[in-house]
Amino acid sequence: MGVSGGADSVALIRILVEERFANLIVCHLDHQLRGRASAGDAKFVKSLAAELGLACEVGQAEVAKRMEDEKESMETAARNARHAFFAQCAAKYGCTKILLAHHADDQAETVLWNLLRGSHGLKGMQAEQKIGALEFHRPLLEIRRAELVAWLHSNKHRWREDASNAQPIAIRNRLRNEALPLLAEISARDPVAALVRGAKEAAESEALMRWATSQVQVHDPQGRLHVRVLEHLPRALQRAILADFLKAGGVVNLNKELLENAVSLLQGASPPAVNLPGGGWLRRRAARVFIERA
Amino acid sequence: MGVSGGADSVALIRILVEERFANLIVCHLDHQLRGRASAGDAKFVKSLAAELGLACEVGQAEVAKRMEDEKESMETAARNARHAFFAQCAAKYGCTKILLAHHADDQAETVLWNLLRGSHGLKGMQAEQKIGALEFHRPLLEIRRAELVAWLHSNKHRWREDASNAQPIAIRNRLRNEALPLLAEISARDPVAALVRGAKEAAESEALMRWATSQVQVHDPQGRLHVRVLEHLPRALQRAILADFLKAGGVVNLNKELLENAVSLLQGASPPAVNLPGGGWLRRRAARVFIERA
Repeated sequence: MGVSGGADSVALIRILVEERFANLIVCHLDHQLRGRASAGDAKFVKSLAAELGLACEVGQAEVAKRMEDEKESMETAARNARHAFFAQCAAKYGCTKILLAHHADDQAETVLWNLLRGSHGLKGMQAEQKIGALEFHRPLLEIRRAELVAWLHSNKHRWREDASNAQPIAIRNRLRNEALPLLAEISARDPVAALVRGAKEAAESEALMRWATSQVQVHDPQGRLHVRVLEHLPRALQRAILADFLKAGGVVNLNKELLENAVSLLQGASPPAVNLPGGGWLRRRAARVFIERA
Repeated sequence: MGVSGGADSVALIRILVEERFANLIVCHLDHQLRGRASAGDAKFVKSLAAELGLACEVGQAEVAKRMEDEKESMETAARNARHAFFAQCAAKYGCTKILLAHHADDQAETVLWNLLRGSHGLKGMQAEQKIGALEFHRPLLEIRRAELVAWLHSNKHRWREDASNAQPIAIRNRLRNEALPLLAEISARDPVAALVRGAKEAAESEALMRWATSQVQVHDPQGRLHVRVLEHLPRALQRAILADFLKAGGVVNLNKELLENAVSLLQGASPPAVNLPGGGWLRRRAARVFIERA
């Protein structure tokens, strides 16, 4: 499991040990973004693993270098570095499950940030997520940070203040420290709970969409799409089917605009073709929609 | 159409007149919440209608009295008073379509407020909405208030500053004046656009859900629900089908908790019954779910 040394990951690892989970491996990635405090975090995590009798892997992520080399944002660079490190650890120990300590407050920030970025609705982190051969599990996703801290306090467990992966990200900090408290004050309600619930509903909507796409037979024997079937489906389903079709056809970089144009093909847009990124067209002809290469 | 005298409704009525919409009736409800300014709004709207050669109805809403008598919040009391007034006007003139000037900024506040209240996801106002025999249309729902104001300025049209139905509602004002600007600043993005898009996607998800419920045959000849069919459906669809079933069975005041309990009936919850508000149970027996009266 990923252990930063912060309250969230210390609480999770200690709860797992109390619940007698076996074969846990403590994986700590030093992001090298916090100077001497980073080294202190690594030292703390190593001694925690030793205390609990668990194997411990400590890796160094060159996040700053990665941002420079790959032109990635700090958030993306840190995430990619973590994924690479977890994959390494998983391979070394022959395991596939990665436990992460993201909690409800992290989830609320993620949902709000995704919402503001405007392309994901209320999408949040998933409680269970497959990436390649790895399964990521986030068992604390509906638990508030304050509950974890209270539990640590009442059990006299120590942790590293500020040892959080999210720490370097200014936008997240402002969402946490300014936006969420303001929304709570204005609404006299708990926005974290509302956002976490929203993410759950968004995941359920996504599952409904997967089910819906499996219910309709839209391909002809040549693998093209039947316009006559598609045109009677709800717009959201049309979009999902067209997205699947384009992905299966090797089209990358699908964006909203392309999908909207693809949907309008079904409604008889003229000309009956949409330019695809990387060349070629999505074309409507004889009540079929198909990809035509350039 | 509803005309408060504010920039939004003045812009809409003038655009409609320019576009040669015929038989428009100007309906203005004096909420009597702003003292002498309210009377000024009514006077302004009457002279605007006269200038445009349109019929004009002005009503008096006793919002404060209604809040007292019906124990309604100001928002609910004002909305109910407006609906009653529109229904009256529609009956008098024998029409069914009500045009409202809600714009993208109104929509964003509504979505954010619904989100914070935590029971509606990203639900917003609908562009077209049937309530009883009336059809409400909101053609400006994707237009920013600033665009409407710019149009009014460039055409030298006047309006009443602050003559807005939303004006008395403190929470909305704070969402508009504090929360949305802060979210914009933190994210360096336009939260209004993101929230308006979110509402559109939520409406499309709702349409998908309606479609999905129509795709499955879940009732037995006695009108009970087949557990064996339901149990394989996505959770969101189970919930929607159970909500429809309970509503059709005359159960009012459905809440999330009741629906979650109903869903857990499908998964073999024990005891296999859920108490219903107003008496009776939703019961599972012999692979069927049905309502049993007390």
